[in-house]
Amino acid sequence: MKYFITGCAGFIASNLTDRLLQEGHQVVGYDNFSTGLQEFLENAKKSPNFTLINGDLHDRDLVTQSMQGCDMVFHFAANADVRFGTDHPNKDLEQNVLVTFYVLEAMRAHNIKQIAFASTGSIYGEATVIPTPENAPFPVQTSLYGASKLAAEGLIQAYCEGFNFKAYIFRFVSILGERYTHGHVFDFYKQLLVDPSKLFILGNGKQRKSYLYIQDCIDAIQWALKHSDDKVNIFNLGTDEYCQVNDSIGWICDYLQVKPELNYGGGESGWIGDNPFIFLDCSKIRKLGWKPKLSIRDGVMQTIKYLHENPWVLENRT
Amino acid sequence: MKYFITGCAGFIASNLTDRLLQEGHQVVGYDNFSTGLQEFLENAKKSPNFTLINGDLHDRDLVTQSMQGCDMVFHFAANADVRFGTDHPNKDLEQNVLVTFYVLEAMRAHNIKQIAFASTGSIYGEATVIPTPENAPFPVQTSLYGASKLAAEGLIQAYCEGFNFKAYIFRFVSILGERYTHGHVFDFYKQLLVDPSKLFILGNGKQRKSYLYIQDCIDAIQWALKHSDDKVNIFNLGTDEYCQVNDSIGWICDYLQVKPELNYGGGESGWIGDNPFIFLDCSKIRKLGWKPKLSIRDGVMQTIKYLHENPWVLENRT
Repeated sequence: MKYFITGCAGFIASNLTDRLLQEGHQVVGYDNFSTGLQEFLENAKKSPNFTLINGDLHDRDLVTQSMQGCDMVFHFAANADVRFGTDHPNKDLEQNVLVTFYVLEAMRAHNIKQIAFASTGSIYGEATVIPTPENAPFPVQTSLYGASKLAAEGLIQAYCEGFNFKAYIFRFVSILGERYTHGHVFDFYKQLLVDPSKLFILGNGKQRKSYLYIQDCIDAIQWALKHSDDKVNIFNLGTDEYCQVNDSIGWICDYLQVKPELNYGGGESGWIGDNPFIFLDCSKIRKLGWKPKLSIRDGVMQTIKYLHENPWVLENRT
Repeated sequence: MKYFITGCAGFIASNLTDRLLQEGHQVVGYDNFSTGLQEFLENAKKSPNFTLINGDLHDRDLVTQSMQGCDMVFHFAANADVRFGTDHPNKDLEQNVLVTFYVLEAMRAHNIKQIAFASTGSIYGEATVIPTPENAPFPVQTSLYGASKLAAEGLIQAYCEGFNFKAYIFRFVSILGERYTHGHVFDFYKQLLVDPSKLFILGNGKQRKSYLYIQDCIDAIQWALKHSDDKVNIFNLGTDEYCQVNDSIGWICDYLQVKPELNYGGGESGWIGDNPFIFLDCSKIRKLGWKPKLSIRDGVMQTIKYLHENPWVLENRT
């Protein structure tokens, strides 16, 4: 198979790229390196089956041209800057909604009918059912990020009905592991490297979060593609457990053998639109036979280990 | 109050404009007359409280400038060409999603915090719960129109959380009555005027549809504004009954005293993405004390009467 992967230099998509290449597939990777890193493609670039397109998804001609001959699209590029949505509301709209439309239209131009899309548990807003299943009560959006991902999901679903596309939509919890470069584990690790004597935490530290290890995430994506065959295939991806931000602070401090003074920003949410509790009911994918190999704690430890072994990642990120 | 109404020359918004002016409010109406009709504003234009801006919502400067001094926005402009979404997918995206973003940003520029939005029962896709309540299971989109309205809803909701807006989102069934200018009652009436001996019907005529009379719709909107005070107020608007397309054919034929030969296109849906059954659970607004005055049959009769008395409407529409 020949896959077109948007955002191929990003955290999740670069791991997916590596996996698909390992399995002998061809990959055309597309990235503008606004947040993706060339270093994440070091393995991929060694493969004769990998083609890298350094371009922006707003360049519709280049997207369309680059997609030629591909069998399926993984649309994983996104503005993942969840936290600062209200600072620049156009960013989510342009990078998550419009770009998805451009990708769909490019697919239509080449008669490519199959797409996998990286969505998010944030689209459930302040969920009223927890753990939250895929068919939860129709949610109200609480963040521009969630709203933009929901808009993209809706477009993709409408293309399935209107143009006979087939879609795999994955609603992720936060993902951790190799090449993880943003989020609170990253922030905490970085703070403690600079000054192990104190740690600032947004919110009250009691925000409950669910995490999934990146390799488990890639396994789940591939599992769903293999074992589900509807027109629109929507899956929550996460673990069956959750932790508190304070738990992960404990694990990180244990690993680093530090005992910082903890300063909390206070309040239940870390920022406007931050959901104090994202916990997804993943029984739909579990029923297909997939299950995560790593616990949340193991995933956090794996992440710290990765950051420890790859100090350059921290220098690349502010 | 001074209201800003987008799509003020359209079916629903022009009736709303008249109502608000009758009540002594000021209205700034904005329309590009791509589908709206100057004739629908004949009453409004006689009022010193009405200001008409002939402009496109893509002209962000003009939108922002025109909105100055307004207290609340009714965003009712839309690409309502539900049927031909797949012919030009960009239209729904541009006219329903982007334009909503421009309206929200213009509001933000003027610190206007209150918005009412014309959404649609189409966002429930192929609903699994019928009648469909506002908190139905998270639906899958089946039309570009529905997807674009859902995207707009999501944006509005995110602005409520992120920028402290307050929103009234109305998910309509099909609306009938004075100034109704598209949909099957209009099509049938027009066909029968040309040739009363035969009638072509998309689908099998058994599509069940729910209709609401325009004046009942305006009543409901005003009722919700008066009696609901949440951050995000979402209401289905419809009647507690439904009819089959074949029922309305009978009523129209009775009114016109014709007995045409009926030719059916066949199939359960009229077109791709046409939902064979939109029937909304309106108990949320009913519990606030509103109820429709006209039955579906009365609404259809009122519509035929209007079309009969205003033959120019038919000439204006292809």
